[in-house]
Amino acid sequence: MSDASNPATIAVIGGTGHLGGALARRWARSGRRVLLGSRDAGKARDAALALSNETGVKVEGGANRDVAERALIVVVTVPFGSQAATLTDIRDVVQGKLVVDCTVPLVPPRVMRVQLPAEGCAAAIAQRILGEQVSIVSAFHNVAAHKLATDAAVDCDVLVFGEQRDARETVVRLAEAAGLRGLHAGSLANSAAAEALTSILIFVNKHYGIDGAGVRLTGSFGAK
Amino acid sequence: MSDASNPATIAVIGGTGHLGGALARRWARSGRRVLLGSRDAGKARDAALALSNETGVKVEGGANRDVAERALIVVVTVPFGSQAATLTDIRDVVQGKLVVDCTVPLVPPRVMRVQLPAEGCAAAIAQRILGEQVSIVSAFHNVAAHKLATDAAVDCDVLVFGEQRDARETVVRLAEAAGLRGLHAGSLANSAAAEALTSILIFVNKHYGIDGAGVRLTGSFGAK
Repeated sequence: MSDASNPATIAVIGGTGHLGGALARRWARSGRRVLLGSRDAGKARDAALALSNETGVKVEGGANRDVAERALIVVVTVPFGSQAATLTDIRDVVQGKLVVDCTVPLVPPRVMRVQLPAEGCAAAIAQRILGEQVSIVSAFHNVAAHKLATDAAVDCDVLVFGEQRDARETVVRLAEAAGLRGLHAGSLANSAAAEALTSILIFVNKHYGIDGAGVRLTGSFGAK
Repeated sequence: MSDASNPATIAVIGGTGHLGGALARRWARSGRRVLLGSRDAGKARDAALALSNETGVKVEGGANRDVAERALIVVVTVPFGSQAATLTDIRDVVQGKLVVDCTVPLVPPRVMRVQLPAEGCAAAIAQRILGEQVSIVSAFHNVAAHKLATDAAVDCDVLVFGEQRDARETVVRLAEAAGLRGLHAGSLANSAAAEALTSILIFVNKHYGIDGAGVRLTGSFGAK
């Protein structure tokens, strides 16, 4: 209850992973209250302590389900292979909340090849598992985690998908808090575009010998 | 036969449309030999005459199948609803050639929503219809036709998909001849990413009040 003050506490599920850890660090440094989750509560607490020491901001860690229960915004950063089990684990405690799904449906070993799921995109799977009482937004598919983990500017937009404009706007602001430009990109089904793009970025990294290609939309986005 | 000299003649199928007309114009002005095709041969001849007069380069027009027969590179720029019929029409005369499919699977009226076909992408449909003896590359999904129709620089990359690197490279150079940056983006299945992105661009154009948003990949592409 005390964690649910404004601005809302963010639970990062899979927070000991590369993307989750990098987002948590940037959000903590921006002044947001962050909880780190992992399947392994001890590992999450260790990572949270390290992050607290580094940033000077108190970050707590715990089991995915426990930190999800304590936050109003739950950001899921797990591999595609763990998405269903993770969402099923936290389903009961995220009802009525905002869940930001960052899952990219990479199917190893062919991660340079787009292999979207039968549902159309990983975000649609999240909606199906969590149900209609959860506001789902998908985002953060394309940003290179190892770049986000530094303090450098990251030359990549965050395309933000979801049915509800207000929920998308909250995530656009989370992107900005992490030092990225977030852009409204339409309905949850549109997440297929960003999820597929990740395989393109992995391909061009290899083909052109690049470290961390990104994506930018061009146009006069200044107005809104 | 005389049309099949090097550099290869380009037949633009659907060449009286916005994208096809704009590509044909840019290629003609770059010195490429271009044939304009349409279902209506007379309309194609009229458009070719207008293009010849404007550019000072001789452009010929004719029925889609006739111009496809006379070229080694066949660029298909038709709406998704016409893709299957158009490819079936030209199938016999493009065997052994390079076909560049530009089809974006928009399903009106909901063009701001990604609705990829069951095959995964429109490029996969092209491969299925044309067969394995046709080298298929897909590209030019994201460039705004009305911007391409001008002489201005267009702030948009061309993501180029196909199984064969040499065929992709030919299309990367076609993009450059049209004044655009072409990038190798992996296998034909990866075309789903660019095809889906078009709905995102249509969405952001409306949401942010932009005229002709585009997409750029970021990173150090200079090397290759």
